[in-house]
Amino acid sequence: MRPTLTDAQTLDDQDTLADFKAHFALPDGMLYLDGNSLGAQPNAAREALDATRDQWRDSLIGGWNQGWFDAPERLGNLLAPLIGASEGEVLVSDTITLNLFKLLGYITESQERARPIILSEGGNFPADGYIAEGFCHSAGFEHGVLPEGAALEEHLSDQVAVVVLSQVNYRTGQLRDMAEVNRRIHAKGAEVIWDLAHSAGALAVDLAGSGARYAVGCTYKYLNGGPGAPGFVYVRSDRQQAGWQPLSGWHGHAKPFAFDADYAPASGMTRFRTGTHSALAYAPLEASLKLWQQVDMAALRAKSLALTDLFRACLADLFEAHGIEDITPAPAQRGSQVGLVQREHGYAIVQALIKRGVIGDYREPGLMRFGFTPLYLSHADVWHAAEQFREVVESGEYRDPRFQTRTEVT
Amino acid sequence: MRPTLTDAQTLDDQDTLADFKAHFALPDGMLYLDGNSLGAQPNAAREALDATRDQWRDSLIGGWNQGWFDAPERLGNLLAPLIGASEGEVLVSDTITLNLFKLLGYITESQERARPIILSEGGNFPADGYIAEGFCHSAGFEHGVLPEGAALEEHLSDQVAVVVLSQVNYRTGQLRDMAEVNRRIHAKGAEVIWDLAHSAGALAVDLAGSGARYAVGCTYKYLNGGPGAPGFVYVRSDRQQAGWQPLSGWHGHAKPFAFDADYAPASGMTRFRTGTHSALAYAPLEASLKLWQQVDMAALRAKSLALTDLFRACLADLFEAHGIEDITPAPAQRGSQVGLVQREHGYAIVQALIKRGVIGDYREPGLMRFGFTPLYLSHADVWHAAEQFREVVESGEYRDPRFQTRTEVT
Repeated sequence: MRPTLTDAQTLDDQDTLADFKAHFALPDGMLYLDGNSLGAQPNAAREALDATRDQWRDSLIGGWNQGWFDAPERLGNLLAPLIGASEGEVLVSDTITLNLFKLLGYITESQERARPIILSEGGNFPADGYIAEGFCHSAGFEHGVLPEGAALEEHLSDQVAVVVLSQVNYRTGQLRDMAEVNRRIHAKGAEVIWDLAHSAGALAVDLAGSGARYAVGCTYKYLNGGPGAPGFVYVRSDRQQAGWQPLSGWHGHAKPFAFDADYAPASGMTRFRTGTHSALAYAPLEASLKLWQQVDMAALRAKSLALTDLFRACLADLFEAHGIEDITPAPAQRGSQVGLVQREHGYAIVQALIKRGVIGDYREPGLMRFGFTPLYLSHADVWHAAEQFREVVESGEYRDPRFQTRTEVT
Repeated sequence: MRPTLTDAQTLDDQDTLADFKAHFALPDGMLYLDGNSLGAQPNAAREALDATRDQWRDSLIGGWNQGWFDAPERLGNLLAPLIGASEGEVLVSDTITLNLFKLLGYITESQERARPIILSEGGNFPADGYIAEGFCHSAGFEHGVLPEGAALEEHLSDQVAVVVLSQVNYRTGQLRDMAEVNRRIHAKGAEVIWDLAHSAGALAVDLAGSGARYAVGCTYKYLNGGPGAPGFVYVRSDRQQAGWQPLSGWHGHAKPFAFDADYAPASGMTRFRTGTHSALAYAPLEASLKLWQQVDMAALRAKSLALTDLFRACLADLFEAHGIEDITPAPAQRGSQVGLVQREHGYAIVQALIKRGVIGDYREPGLMRFGFTPLYLSHADVWHAAEQFREVVESGEYRDPRFQTRTEVT
């Protein structure tokens, strides 16, 4: 039986996270299933941004002594419990791309450059591979690709220094078993850097419990930090005294205000800081992370699975007749997204949905990607979004020429 | 004769830049001589930030197709005329530190790594040296230091790949002859990267006219972009097709939305982009740069020299009796700052001034540093600031114990 609106509303009545929705500013008439690209705006984030805007005007240079300077460490400590890390293990800094570069340099130096190969994975968001290539090109390492679906052991050897892996695949939503992968890669003497872009804030990441040593991530998706909000870097505490990272900026110096001639890395995560960061970019993220402190991550995960399953159940009867393939992984291997593939019309269906105010996104070839953010989506929202999808597909309105024109979306 | 307030007001009456002051939000009762650390807030920057804040709320992911994505190139083109560059030669991106790293990799690759030494200068802001060290450490180059005041030729050889130099020294305000230095270094087959942190927006930088090929800078000082606003990178158009920069992010890819497996650099300055940037950090900077389009840079320079000379003339009679040394360079070699050294009491004098609302800063050993920003300082402001300095020194109030405690300021 297809779920009814009443079914969805019953689930909302039982939802312990339902009150969080009031903390977000959501445009009227929009059903936003793209929080996995850019998260919605918490009201507190808006207020924090305004306060920092005024602090620039009123305190000018004094703002750096009123909380701006220590934001990378302070926000890192707010983020830590959301990903299973401890105080002093996370720094909010730069971007995911730059943090990957730092870790590649840091780890290979700690290995005394004894292993020449850096592996990144094929079939995933290619940005991690690009920066791994750049690192290898610059620092004299060899870049290798782990093909999608390949057996890990076939590509591991005593020549592999580091493997860069995403916990959740951006296209398919496939969730990796972090503990198992860590065990297998560490057993070969290699290190893993986990990309948490599609898992931090989407589910209860357990870095400590899974034996992870290194990770990076971004905060503008599920963590609601704002467009292009800073990235983060995690290094387990017992791996924090191993020397330099290559992007050795003055904020990462042991004594940044001594203006010493030579670089000396700060202790702990501070060494991963680079130059002067944007106080305006950190302010809304800090407010968002404070909101996240109140979230029960087990409840978040349960609601994420309920929302994704509700959306699929509302549409399952459509799939065969309309050539749609549901590639959403089983719950235990699922991130917080639904993937529906329609090779011929996927792009146009997404455009027609956007026109109706249902925001998802499209990735070649044929993938309609819908992200589910438990803090600001109700079960009723998901039911209504599925109804819109049904109408677009059953009416054939996606065949309108205006929905065929390709424009690029990040 | 010491200038009088009437003298200062007469200069204000003749000031063609006087109207710009109304475009800035300045705290009541503050005389801000630290715009060389963090520039004041233009009203338009505040409005632009608010608009982007609302765009995040209302357009969500759609904002990336409404101007956010192309901001690095668009703002670069706004900045270009202020530093003597052409359209397509400047990119606003990341930070000065990271842009230096990119250029070091880019240039040494174009030289086929034939020269093993990177030189940075001693006696200047050490951040450039730190990142040069990090690059050398990671990429296998040798880092050398050009001692302050050393003859350039003694340190140049066919082993030197790149020299990193500041156009204006952050401590002394000493302005280098960019054309002459370019000629001498290029004659030895080496390249120069110019750090414009204390010259962009402080004077009429002429990159094209001086034969400069590479430069980096920041926008949060004289250019009023906001706390930690993004940096910029300049590569002369004829040097833009020489391959990779090491921080190869997906926004710098030739086809970022094709999600190709392999990195391929975009043409032109876009290859210097890395990952997703903060839309909130770019918004106020764009508004500030638009304001700067209206500034006559020759008038700016003339006013800068007039303001710095006025401040010194107001105080010259104090210096000998109070052990103060005026290290401000002669006009032709001066940035837009005044340097006064009092080894024993410099720190306390600056603190006493801050308490009175006259904001300067202090750098060891003994340096009181005052920045002069012609867009929002009047001659009368400078006269009043000098009067406050006189009162602090003549009264001895800086001897109060509360002004002796050291706190760190960026």
